[in-house]
Amino acid sequence: MAGNTIGQLFRVTTFGESHGVALGCIIDGCPPGLALTEADMQHDLDRRRPGTSKYTTQRREADEVKILSGVFEGQTTGTSIGLLIENTDQRSKDYSNIQDLFRPGHADYTYHQKYGVRDYRGGGRSSARETAMRVAAGAVAKKYLKQVHGIEVCAYLSQMGDVKIEKVDWQQIEQNAFFCPDVDKVDAFDELIRNLKKDGDSIGAKITVVARNVPVGLGEPVFDRLDADIAHSLMSINAVKGVEIGDGFDVVEQRGSEHRDAMTLQGFKTNHAGGILGGISSGQDVIAHIALKPTSSISIPGETITKQGESAEVITKGRHDPCVGIRAVPIAEAMLAITLMDHLLRNRGQNADVVTTTPKI
Amino acid sequence: MAGNTIGQLFRVTTFGESHGVALGCIIDGCPPGLALTEADMQHDLDRRRPGTSKYTTQRREADEVKILSGVFEGQTTGTSIGLLIENTDQRSKDYSNIQDLFRPGHADYTYHQKYGVRDYRGGGRSSARETAMRVAAGAVAKKYLKQVHGIEVCAYLSQMGDVKIEKVDWQQIEQNAFFCPDVDKVDAFDELIRNLKKDGDSIGAKITVVARNVPVGLGEPVFDRLDADIAHSLMSINAVKGVEIGDGFDVVEQRGSEHRDAMTLQGFKTNHAGGILGGISSGQDVIAHIALKPTSSISIPGETITKQGESAEVITKGRHDPCVGIRAVPIAEAMLAITLMDHLLRNRGQNADVVTTTPKI
Amino acid sequence: MAGNTIGQLFRVTTFGESHGVALGCIIDGCPPGLALTEADMQHDLDRRRPGTSKYTTQRREADEVKILSGVFEGQTTGTSIGLLIENTDQRSKDYSNIQDLFRPGHADYTYHQKYGVRDYRGGGRSSARETAMRVAAGAVAKKYLKQVHGIEVCAYLSQMGDVKIEKVDWQQIEQNAFFCPDVDKVDAFDELIRNLKKDGDSIGAKITVVARNVPVGLGEPVFDRLDADIAHSLMSINAVKGVEIGDGFDVVEQRGSEHRDAMTLQGFKTNHAGGILGGISSGQDVIAHIALKPTSSISIPGETITKQGESAEVITKGRHDPCVGIRAVPIAEAMLAITLMDHLLRNRGQNADVVTTTPKI
Amino acid sequence: MAGNTIGQLFRVTTFGESHGVALGCIIDGCPPGLALTEADMQHDLDRRRPGTSKYTTQRREADEVKILSGVFEGQTTGTSIGLLIENTDQRSKDYSNIQDLFRPGHADYTYHQKYGVRDYRGGGRSSARETAMRVAAGAVAKKYLKQVHGIEVCAYLSQMGDVKIEKVDWQQIEQNAFFCPDVDKVDAFDELIRNLKKDGDSIGAKITVVARNVPVGLGEPVFDRLDADIAHSLMSINAVKGVEIGDGFDVVEQRGSEHRDAMTLQGFKTNHAGGILGGISSGQDVIAHIALKPTSSISIPGETITKQGESAEVITKGRHDPCVGIRAVPIAEAMLAITLMDHLLRNRGQNADVVTTTPKI
Repeated sequence: MAGNTIGQLFRVTTFGESHGVALGCIIDGCPPGLALTEADMQHDLDRRRPGTSKYTTQRREADEVKILSGVFEGQTTGTSIGLLIENTDQRSKDYSNIQDLFRPGHADYTYHQKYGVRDYRGGGRSSARETAMRVAAGAVAKKYLKQVHGIEVCAYLSQMGDVKIEKVDWQQIEQNAFFCPDVDKVDAFDELIRNLKKDGDSIGAKITVVARNVPVGLGEPVFDRLDADIAHSLMSINAVKGVEIGDGFDVVEQRGSEHRDAMTLQGFKTNHAGGILGGISSGQDVIAHIALKPTSSISIPGETITKQGESAEVITKGRHDPCVGIRAVPIAEAMLAITLMDHLLRNRGQNADVVTTTPKI
Repeated sequence: MAGNTIGQLFRVTTFGESHGVALGCIIDGCPPGLALTEADMQHDLDRRRPGTSKYTTQRREADEVKILSGVFEGQTTGTSIGLLIENTDQRSKDYSNIQDLFRPGHADYTYHQKYGVRDYRGGGRSSARETAMRVAAGAVAKKYLKQVHGIEVCAYLSQMGDVKIEKVDWQQIEQNAFFCPDVDKVDAFDELIRNLKKDGDSIGAKITVVARNVPVGLGEPVFDRLDADIAHSLMSINAVKGVEIGDGFDVVEQRGSEHRDAMTLQGFKTNHAGGILGGISSGQDVIAHIALKPTSSISIPGETITKQGESAEVITKGRHDPCVGIRAVPIAEAMLAITLMDHLLRNRGQNADVVTTTPKI
Repeated sequence: MAGNTIGQLFRVTTFGESHGVALGCIIDGCPPGLALTEADMQHDLDRRRPGTSKYTTQRREADEVKILSGVFEGQTTGTSIGLLIENTDQRSKDYSNIQDLFRPGHADYTYHQKYGVRDYRGGGRSSARETAMRVAAGAVAKKYLKQVHGIEVCAYLSQMGDVKIEKVDWQQIEQNAFFCPDVDKVDAFDELIRNLKKDGDSIGAKITVVARNVPVGLGEPVFDRLDADIAHSLMSINAVKGVEIGDGFDVVEQRGSEHRDAMTLQGFKTNHAGGILGGISSGQDVIAHIALKPTSSISIPGETITKQGESAEVITKGRHDPCVGIRAVPIAEAMLAITLMDHLLRNRGQNADVVTTTPKI
Repeated sequence: MAGNTIGQLFRVTTFGESHGVALGCIIDGCPPGLALTEADMQHDLDRRRPGTSKYTTQRREADEVKILSGVFEGQTTGTSIGLLIENTDQRSKDYSNIQDLFRPGHADYTYHQKYGVRDYRGGGRSSARETAMRVAAGAVAKKYLKQVHGIEVCAYLSQMGDVKIEKVDWQQIEQNAFFCPDVDKVDAFDELIRNLKKDGDSIGAKITVVARNVPVGLGEPVFDRLDADIAHSLMSINAVKGVEIGDGFDVVEQRGSEHRDAMTLQGFKTNHAGGILGGISSGQDVIAHIALKPTSSISIPGETITKQGESAEVITKGRHDPCVGIRAVPIAEAMLAITLMDHLLRNRGQNADVVTTTPKI
């Protein structure tokens, strides 16, 4: 409760359950004068939308977003932007059998214990369905960042199970259903998913998200550091269990002489830091990685208990993704964009007086 | 700027530069009636303090904390608690040669670009010296959590370079200078540090931090999830480049049938989730891991540029830790404790009406 | 921007323009388990709604609120509550003539200067239409306060122009169109309004709002004092120019011996303080007064300038209230309820450990 | 608790009790590059300091502020600024007799009920002594506003008891001990105070605070309106019971044709609004008035109860101001400056893209 808002100057607040009437969000703090239509958000919503490929759940959600306020004659007015997506395909009966069960690996048990009551249909508020609004809000941030500051935010699938990509070709990412930048791994991903479906099982994934053309100076030490806020926003995505900035956990085995990124008049020589030094963006690409757990909604029977305190077996029969990580690609972009946008506004609020004369490297 | 506060109901705000007059913090929101003296904080401050072993920097800081307000006749009054540590050992001249240099891997460049001015002595605000106040504030949270709720927060070094611990004996942690829970690895750590010193180099580390007896229900979805807030607070520690909850990045290769923690009438059978489901604590141990980069303050020459835009070579000669990860153990405990404390208060603010009758597992 | 949220644990965020598609809000932090239907909000919405009497604007807005999330099987679930009111009667053409004019006494000029663009239709975001969502959210707070804590929040019109009420009969308030608690003043109010309509002019008003059965202890000194937060929430209502707690501005001429409320074993002897001491509720009735300016939307010609920087005359011909103060009665109740609700949750979050044994007076 | 912070981008957090070790505050969000020394704050601290004239309490507090961080080589660095004032004159024994009494009109009772424990010495945290840190922080805001934006914030005493000023001569304010801008009223104020001292009684006061050269556009509707935030910050001052913007409560009897401020090419013709329209500054002077209650610390016996639940009589013998309103003049300036500073930074964070071409009036 009172945890449904992210950001300070660019603030996103969301509502909505998986099988409720509608999902919605309020974007507060979008600067005025940005040209904005529903189409600007629809593209990313479609990328996240289930049912678009055979690799993701076959649930069909139109996910048509409507702008209810904050835009006048095609541009933002600086007032709060209300967004709405009506839920259309809500086969609630799919879930009636889990009304009294706590599905292992899901939030059923913790929501029940915390709130004493829960909307069990499709996970209710704990469903990843909620992330549709993040993608819509993120699209607004992405458009502003791109248009006003030339900042681009892109993500891709870098690993699924034990299949890792070996190269990054940005042109490939939208050419396949996996958001995979390595054309040579698409078949391996395809095979992995087919095997999982056969087994009724699921698999984890790793996503990489990158922001280019980020200006130097974003991030507010010591607690609202850019890396800390990125960790927060990425870890808030359903199923994420780990966040790395730059080299991440690889630094454990690195030496200082190897890790530190040398600076020359031509710029940084390497980017082990992932574009952030001392919690402040350095002007290099901001790079983060996230680990997404395998969904627990699988058809292999699992051991659990009921609300009434009895043992039970659970088999999830709904339409679920064998790898939720795939659809998390646009979500990761959205969250990084929202956090960068917030820090961009915060930085210029407080440092507009600063004129540095050093050549930016 | 305006980023020096963490927490919502249990709020910690800090100030202080490495070589300034003093460090301080304000703890706002500590419940009244908690017995509190300086000694309660001093223990953890001494654990973090440099100069206590041959493995860490030989700078000597008394790090004596003073309570300036918020405590009356030995107990907290519910008003804001002012804490102060005076800086005593400030050999500023050590740093005069880096006044115009941007040390690679440090925040010199980003602070300069963001603020146009910086206190270059010892890194100023970007120095890990600032974490002393986190440890002091964290000690207050730890005491409250332990005394009122029986919650214990402990951390240990789980890896340094390529040396990984293989077992966890909680009794061992305070018996060696590495906070190492595996007595059989102490010699290997010792050798690694000695080699690094000889080379004038540094190494990364991995810390594990665990909270036991955490009640079910902490965390406020969807953005202020407990895991997201832990990621934020741990990533805000200097040098941290990665945060994992539970199995962390290992989930990428896990299957759903393996990852999901089965529930029985006797409790959860495993804890892959790290004690958090859907962003809410499950009642299991909360487990997090962090990766700390090798310090860039090494005596091996590095390539860099100056404020004036010229090439330069940098050699850091100050007294520095070959592995900053070691001293991060009490800091990680402090940050986890602060975040749990905040969520404990938030949860009871909003869910005090809830009475769940299900047996807690 | 980023100013559309009020509250910390009970947080209300709103969106919507006067003539936009819809108004909406998100209530974040409502405790779970509260029985809630649209009807609970509709009663207060109807009290605020224009067109219900001849004394207020004849615009007709159905103001039918829909719950989109956060309620399941008739009770709140602890997740964010999405509310929506569609705008149905939007005679936008009424306003086309003021597209380029800055109406004196309105926000046209300041919105234009701040944002560079504005939705001029009916005042857009600056219209009091926005307060409909406050009333809806306030109704949720009022229900919780009443049901769980027995706290009641009521307001009435205490003055309009130079006509002041002389007694308070709580039963009378809902019996007349003025929310007037003094039956002997209803005719004078009626006459005043009729004269104003004839003149095409408007008048200011004073509203009194009272909360009964407020527990001791609400308010978080020194900045988030209960009185300071009430001043904030009441001053945020459109047209409010003054806020008083208890005796308010009368204290300027009072002596300490007269003002201080003596305490006896039977309770406080007087309530000059308005139920708040040192920023914390005392257990007495919380009493506040607000002053509302006369609306500037009148048919008497006014002098102004245009966007293009030319002199102009403005006559407002829309359907407007001669006294916006009347409809502010339910809005004042809503805002006080929202603030009390927030402080109730905050107080129990942080002081749940406190057991005071002194008899409450 | 957790209520000791004000502001969002320019954030002030304070600690300290009347008779504790020290008072302190952290200013977070002050832009870098501002020349700042202790002397900049000392002037206003001296204006607020007790013991400077025969009209205020004879307690002597040096009130010497020390800068502990955030300033390097004479200018702010953008990092958090720690300030400290040590308490030197703490005659605690004066207060030992009220340890068990709840002084009427004071916060003794509410603090006790809320927290279960309180520092009774001189009111502890509820003492107006706390406002010294507000004045120090406000001086930083005032300096920035003045130097960077030419904004000036000034307050004066406009009424004490039934003596009202009749003219405002800005040059007079600092020429007398009352901050009175009307030289013809100084004798009447002097006589009033002398009579009160003879009677052992106290009196209320009204303060007016004005900000000049405020740019158009400050304030974030709909809740963080500039007027709402000013109401919050002024009402948070000890003893304040009412806040007015512009004409304040006089609007109740005004007509719309009288109240609305006509606009011409030469500017606004009047300023009934007090410089704020729709919650946003209009470019006119921002004008607010506050009512301060008479202090309850008087030597006339008062009726009360004890912690143990018995009747008692209270006589306050300490050294107290007969009119706390006088010393509130610099405090009111400080609070208005802090709020304007915060909104200035917020506005430029979010509206830096806006270029309006209309001539500012």
